[in-house]
Amino acid sequence: MREERLAQLMLNKDYLKVKNELTEMNEVDIADFLNPLDPQTTLLLFRMLPKDLAVEVFAHFSRDQQTSIINTATETEVEGIIEELYFDDMIDIIEEVPANIVNKILLYAREDERKLVNQFLKYPADSAGSLMTIEYVNLHREMTVKEALDHIKEVGLTSETVYTCYVIDNKRKLEGFVSLRKIVTSEEDVLIDEIMEEDIIKVNTHDDQEEVAGVFSRYGFVALPVVDNENRLIGIITVDDIMGIIEQEATEDFQIMAGTSPSDESYLDTGVLKLVRNRLPWLLILMISGTFTGRIMAKYEDILASVVILSTFIPMLMDTGGNSGSQSSTLVIRGLATGDIKNTDGMKVVLKELGIASIAGLILAGINFLRLVTLEKVPVKIALTVTITLFAVVVASKLVGGVLPIIADKLNMDPAIMAGPLITTIVDAMALYLYFVLAQSLLSDILTVGLL
Amino acid sequence: MREERLAQLMLNKDYLKVKNELTEMNEVDIADFLNPLDPQTTLLLFRMLPKDLAVEVFAHFSRDQQTSIINTATETEVEGIIEELYFDDMIDIIEEVPANIVNKILLYAREDERKLVNQFLKYPADSAGSLMTIEYVNLHREMTVKEALDHIKEVGLTSETVYTCYVIDNKRKLEGFVSLRKIVTSEEDVLIDEIMEEDIIKVNTHDDQEEVAGVFSRYGFVALPVVDNENRLIGIITVDDIMGIIEQEATEDFQIMAGTSPSDESYLDTGVLKLVRNRLPWLLILMISGTFTGRIMAKYEDILASVVILSTFIPMLMDTGGNSGSQSSTLVIRGLATGDIKNTDGMKVVLKELGIASIAGLILAGINFLRLVTLEKVPVKIALTVTITLFAVVVASKLVGGVLPIIADKLNMDPAIMAGPLITTIVDAMALYLYFVLAQSLLSDILTVGLL
Repeated sequence: MREERLAQLMLNKDYLKVKNELTEMNEVDIADFLNPLDPQTTLLLFRMLPKDLAVEVFAHFSRDQQTSIINTATETEVEGIIEELYFDDMIDIIEEVPANIVNKILLYAREDERKLVNQFLKYPADSAGSLMTIEYVNLHREMTVKEALDHIKEVGLTSETVYTCYVIDNKRKLEGFVSLRKIVTSEEDVLIDEIMEEDIIKVNTHDDQEEVAGVFSRYGFVALPVVDNENRLIGIITVDDIMGIIEQEATEDFQIMAGTSPSDESYLDTGVLKLVRNRLPWLLILMISGTFTGRIMAKYEDILASVVILSTFIPMLMDTGGNSGSQSSTLVIRGLATGDIKNTDGMKVVLKELGIASIAGLILAGINFLRLVTLEKVPVKIALTVTITLFAVVVASKLVGGVLPIIADKLNMDPAIMAGPLITTIVDAMALYLYFVLAQSLLSDILTVGLL
Repeated sequence: MREERLAQLMLNKDYLKVKNELTEMNEVDIADFLNPLDPQTTLLLFRMLPKDLAVEVFAHFSRDQQTSIINTATETEVEGIIEELYFDDMIDIIEEVPANIVNKILLYAREDERKLVNQFLKYPADSAGSLMTIEYVNLHREMTVKEALDHIKEVGLTSETVYTCYVIDNKRKLEGFVSLRKIVTSEEDVLIDEIMEEDIIKVNTHDDQEEVAGVFSRYGFVALPVVDNENRLIGIITVDDIMGIIEQEATEDFQIMAGTSPSDESYLDTGVLKLVRNRLPWLLILMISGTFTGRIMAKYEDILASVVILSTFIPMLMDTGGNSGSQSSTLVIRGLATGDIKNTDGMKVVLKELGIASIAGLILAGINFLRLVTLEKVPVKIALTVTITLFAVVVASKLVGGVLPIIADKLNMDPAIMAGPLITTIVDAMALYLYFVLAQSLLSDILTVGLL
């Protein structure tokens, strides 16, 4: 409804009414509305927004819109935006826009911020340091609740969050934290020292963002302090920045598990060539390793030539092996990612997969044998060869699928590599080898006489 | 360090010191420490904790520990716990513990809560209603900031969050919201009406939790209001409950995409039989549909018998097809889940996949042809048959992989079903059919004369 109203107003070029509609909307929605518009119209409407709102909207613009706004707005306007922007948003923008825009941003950044920018840009990508912001409320333990509230009133509007306040000493060492809830529900003359919590859960600037996300999920915090190696408070990370990370980390795992290079660009925004580049390496590697499977078959060409029907079961054997292995590897990879499985749980996983594989393998093999003998009228010896291979393949693939991710994790590799595509290739080779060895021994009479 | 100290103290049965250590820890960590202990020791230590902390720890216990505490604690203790428990935690417990424990909990629940329990249990699993809590702060627009702060001081400690307060009218209709940040940074005599926001982002009790998680990620809120169909405020959902959901939804997709039934139990806690039940159906379905592929091969048995070498390329063709298709389907499924791709983007996806497939297919086919002719010394006509099939399979599988998830979404099915296992089976059949048709026409001279 609002969309239609806005579309109609835009059509009539009734920008004043558009502005009135926009100011009633959430900043994320305003940015979404302005993003697809041409730069002139965007700038026109952007200029009409109240200043506070405009800065919030700016932070949610696409990098292209941000670049064009900085390029076309007046110097005073750019200065106003840069001054009000949260530091972590500024760092995010600086990391991704062209150099001339970076210079323009730094030109208008506050002196103290400019010094910090370089330091922040040095934190590794995907580290806690690259996620944190410097706008937080810090308190001292000797403050009273009233003093703390006055301080929050003063700095609260420019802080990314006021809901967790951090208590530091004169050397900025982190001593504790206190929630705003605790502050507003305490009497005015109580000392922060009496109500602060000292069991600080914190992260280090160099911790990986995946670990940081894990800490947020585990404790349900709205913010976490980030300290350096001397336990000095350097910044904070807020939960809204983490929700994106949790999603992004899962997306990365999906991508790696499907045999593509991880990328945080959205599918529709990524060019065809880039997508080809992300996908081709694994396809190539797997295609070429797939030729080993061909070699195994070539080696047993005689068997295939004399019992042609054997080859018709190969796709079913390969697929069932691949699927069994993918099930196990996916569950173990995901368990490792969410922390449900530790890389010391190897033996537990082996035993569990062995149990599952034995039962599932028996059922699958049984059904398969009956089907082959009754419906397909396949000679019993051949049916046996297929069925025994099937059982062995299910067991082997579940073990391989369960164990390889854990080994990868122990070797500090990403377990997600050990997923479907790679497992399938390994399992295929095993399945075929086993199949022919079994055929050779079980069907020796048919093979020599050449009955079939 | 703390772990070692605790272990030593436990060994010495120095429970008083253990208690002192525990009270300095976060409730999540305390629950983790107590969970594996036997019920007697747990109860012993649990009783020593300060009451407020004990309730928080209780909420983080495993269902087994909660059940045993309720079974063994005194009536007064149980009453104390139930009284202080957040309503959403109580509902979570009620949903999962045995009936006698549920009765005990309801016995001690407050009158008004007991009435609500039944209503809450009626909300569909995975709906906003099943996630929400009733402990929130509500304000009225005619209150002053001072009155609001006094009200928060009064109810703040029993509210799940005080950081977003909801403004309702006399009929409980939601009129706006105001952040505690705004309240504490405003002057005491300002009216809530003046500082509240009216662009309310809210969810309905029946909205799916995946949608709710999407709203949290999009806007970065710490809490969201839940309303009924008459826009009456029924409860709120806080961000800490949502982070688990984002992770759980991704895990569910991983499970479905690997061809297993989704389950929110952790891998190590799930019994072997349950895991077999989760995995067997798809393995069976895919094994049986895999026999179609076998049928196709059986139909072209003559070709396989006269040109045995053809069968040795089948694994490579099937795997490359499966991998190409999985890459596309995984990226599209994930894009649909995160909202990057809408189900109206079908045409964009088709064009993109067609572009990727053409380029990747040409490169793979080219390398494959050269390898076959030079390294493997395969006759050119056979190499051509394999290579053309390879190219066609890559294109077909990328199209199938890209389009099926979108079709599933349009049909209101879970797109995650259209992942690797199913795509592989479909692509296998296509690949083989194509391979033999091509072989029949390209190799007609060899086939009739039977040269190879």
